[in-house]
Amino acid sequence: MACVDLNADLGEDFGAYRLANDGEILAYVTSANLACGMHAGDPVVMARSVALAKARGVAVGAHPGYPDLQGFGRRDMALDEDEIYAFVLYQLGALAAFARSQGVRLHHVKPHGALYNRAAVDRAAARAICRAVAEFDPSLKVYAPYRSELAAQAEAIGLCACCEVFADRRYEADGQLTPRRHPDAIIRDLDEACEQVLTMVREGRVRSRTGEWVEVAADTVCLHGDGPHAVELAKALHERLPHAGVQIRPA
Amino acid sequence: MACVDLNADLGEDFGAYRLANDGEILAYVTSANLACGMHAGDPVVMARSVALAKARGVAVGAHPGYPDLQGFGRRDMALDEDEIYAFVLYQLGALAAFARSQGVRLHHVKPHGALYNRAAVDRAAARAICRAVAEFDPSLKVYAPYRSELAAQAEAIGLCACCEVFADRRYEADGQLTPRRHPDAIIRDLDEACEQVLTMVREGRVRSRTGEWVEVAADTVCLHGDGPHAVELAKALHERLPHAGVQIRPA
Amino acid sequence: MACVDLNADLGEDFGAYRLANDGEILAYVTSANLACGMHAGDPVVMARSVALAKARGVAVGAHPGYPDLQGFGRRDMALDEDEIYAFVLYQLGALAAFARSQGVRLHHVKPHGALYNRAAVDRAAARAICRAVAEFDPSLKVYAPYRSELAAQAEAIGLCACCEVFADRRYEADGQLTPRRHPDAIIRDLDEACEQVLTMVREGRVRSRTGEWVEVAADTVCLHGDGPHAVELAKALHERLPHAGVQIRPA
Amino acid sequence: MACVDLNADLGEDFGAYRLANDGEILAYVTSANLACGMHAGDPVVMARSVALAKARGVAVGAHPGYPDLQGFGRRDMALDEDEIYAFVLYQLGALAAFARSQGVRLHHVKPHGALYNRAAVDRAAARAICRAVAEFDPSLKVYAPYRSELAAQAEAIGLCACCEVFADRRYEADGQLTPRRHPDAIIRDLDEACEQVLTMVREGRVRSRTGEWVEVAADTVCLHGDGPHAVELAKALHERLPHAGVQIRPA
Repeated sequence: MACVDLNADLGEDFGAYRLANDGEILAYVTSANLACGMHAGDPVVMARSVALAKARGVAVGAHPGYPDLQGFGRRDMALDEDEIYAFVLYQLGALAAFARSQGVRLHHVKPHGALYNRAAVDRAAARAICRAVAEFDPSLKVYAPYRSELAAQAEAIGLCACCEVFADRRYEADGQLTPRRHPDAIIRDLDEACEQVLTMVREGRVRSRTGEWVEVAADTVCLHGDGPHAVELAKALHERLPHAGVQIRPA
Repeated sequence: MACVDLNADLGEDFGAYRLANDGEILAYVTSANLACGMHAGDPVVMARSVALAKARGVAVGAHPGYPDLQGFGRRDMALDEDEIYAFVLYQLGALAAFARSQGVRLHHVKPHGALYNRAAVDRAAARAICRAVAEFDPSLKVYAPYRSELAAQAEAIGLCACCEVFADRRYEADGQLTPRRHPDAIIRDLDEACEQVLTMVREGRVRSRTGEWVEVAADTVCLHGDGPHAVELAKALHERLPHAGVQIRPA
Repeated sequence: MACVDLNADLGEDFGAYRLANDGEILAYVTSANLACGMHAGDPVVMARSVALAKARGVAVGAHPGYPDLQGFGRRDMALDEDEIYAFVLYQLGALAAFARSQGVRLHHVKPHGALYNRAAVDRAAARAICRAVAEFDPSLKVYAPYRSELAAQAEAIGLCACCEVFADRRYEADGQLTPRRHPDAIIRDLDEACEQVLTMVREGRVRSRTGEWVEVAADTVCLHGDGPHAVELAKALHERLPHAGVQIRPA
Repeated sequence: MACVDLNADLGEDFGAYRLANDGEILAYVTSANLACGMHAGDPVVMARSVALAKARGVAVGAHPGYPDLQGFGRRDMALDEDEIYAFVLYQLGALAAFARSQGVRLHHVKPHGALYNRAAVDRAAARAICRAVAEFDPSLKVYAPYRSELAAQAEAIGLCACCEVFADRRYEADGQLTPRRHPDAIIRDLDEACEQVLTMVREGRVRSRTGEWVEVAADTVCLHGDGPHAVELAKALHERLPHAGVQIRPA
């Protein structure tokens, strides 16, 4: 039976600041990427987020980012390979402590924001991240774009890479996401988004914005916790995928 | 045979900033308290510091502090019990990741600066720290002042508390350290400092500033890595204690 | 004719984080206390907040706080007098730069959170704040509790202190606010809150929780921008005070 | 009479961390670029640094950098134009407050590290910096590389750009600095470094590493406060330039 994971970025509150309604989307996803205190999240938030994920039976993953709270980890920063390695390892350990204290085992790692984007194409960054993961816990899965440097480096070092796709983002003919500035970048229709996921999971391909079929692997679907329609989309996928014969479970 | 541990606060560099000559004092101590990125230290520094301690065969401990880099963790901050718990757990996990990646096992925890001072007398703070340690790894030793709340809470929760004494600080008749502002607060004579340690280790007592004998337990001696005479004092203790029949080894 | 100022804490967003709907309450207040990047706010937020206040014709004030973003400046921190002086001066200058760049003149200073509470009773803290204000711009008004150390130190150094009262907080017989943990701490009825303000402004006194009359000076009324009813309360005061013969204008 | 300014980056301590011996080099320079709390420096350090510069009669300039203390502002960060504008304006204001409180007038602005490098070639970054300076105080001079975007944008907006040269760095035939990784990047001989400065100031040109003459304007010479030979070099220039008929004074 075909299966897929639904993941969302969660635990992104900081101090008095609330970013998203984590509680709601947790009802529909199977894995949560928790911020680790560098681009978002703080120790108190992390303790709370692990507890929430545990209560929902959602797999807990680390979501390490650049040390840039003001930029929310969305701005590229010229950290070198050793710095990326050290900052990722630090964040893995910090989150793992909250998991351990609550009897939960870390399940995966997904780099955040600008670090994710860089690791998709920059070998040194991808290698640094995977080295940190492999040294910390080689059983951790790495969520990565299909055919990315991150996926390649994960596999090269013996880690399990899970390919991540997007339900509500359009793809270009070369397999890249249509840039957000493009008017057709976002799939706003729930039916269409669900259909795209089903095709990716069952057929291993996606129809690009310009009509070509593009090969893809869909191990996990990313749902943005902070988007306005994220909960609706999560709910729709959660309901429809099983009816279409696709099991939802952690990657 | 009597034995004692010599510990020093290390790994307190941050980014481009260097605080002390860690390398030198590492030759004479048996356990290192490494900063964890909140009051000092950063991920790159932590990777380097664990490697240095490992190379010297020095036991690696966590040195968690308040999240106050500008104040170096020396200013009290009104974190509540849950905040202290979460901030300590975060720092333990972060440092443990670097230890794990280098095949080293964390050995102990010693709170830093204002957090250490508060935990000596504040039950809620002491409990929060010990709860974090116990949940993370109950085999970790807790370095604490003799008869402090921190020692009491550590034992209450089933942790091993190691009593910390000072070689070059004078004690009051009530067992407290003579405040630094007092002209006789610091023992500047190396012989006298070594003698104080020997008496504490072998006799379980110390002669106070005003002449009374005070009961004390001396499991570990604190050497400040950043003091001007720290290396000299460490070297002197390292040489003389074994000659006086006191073995130096991790607590 | 009697007059009073309505002030609110604004500009407390940080990076991707939004704290409150600044735009709405700005329609009803006459002075805004803008966060300066230490406990909340960042340079981008400050530029935007000054522009919003200017567009509404609202007086712009600095709202300096402790350097504790994670704690939102609500936790006491043991900064000494020189540190408070320097941190306040820094924040005044930073905010003033945005005011100057937009042709706006800073109008007042109101310390934030734990710093405000400390400055109410701690002479050294109050003096440090007032020294920073006086050296930076002695024409700036200082918003302070009635009969507080902050008000006293402001006047001692030649600054104009404006006494701040609360519309929806109950007072004790000694003039202090009823602690928030008390069930009657908050006045939830809009009529009663408006009535309390009118009495304070016109009669210079307030009826305490236990019935006694307490002398008070009401130069400015604090409205919390992030409270659920803040906008309603601001709107009600904005409508009713003029009808009751009290003019609303900056302190 | 020919004249030139000697500038150094100063005030880069942070909290308990000391970076360089500011006091010594201050005896030989005519302008100081003071860190503003983002890449280095903190409010207490800024108060102290302004006082030191004032005592020495050295012109005080702002040295704004990226908000990256751990990276010391030496790593590029993808701040957009509005973010750079706001972060620079914030830092100008903060430093100016300390200057104002001590009766000193800000004299110039020199971006730090990665921001300086980016502003040399990136029009948007250069424009953002110059817009912040012009709005804050159009009388401030902008220290910039010769023929850089920063110099161009400064002049375009009506600011005075001062061209900065290096005494101990080699130049390429295209006018760029020889990259630090090149074995001949640094001029270690004091005589040669002094000679290079004299030629630049008197003849408006410099002999490149490969022998060609390159046109240059030398309004101010950068001396790195943290280099091992910075004080020696500063002292040598301070002694020899006047004997060679070049007056040393603020740009």
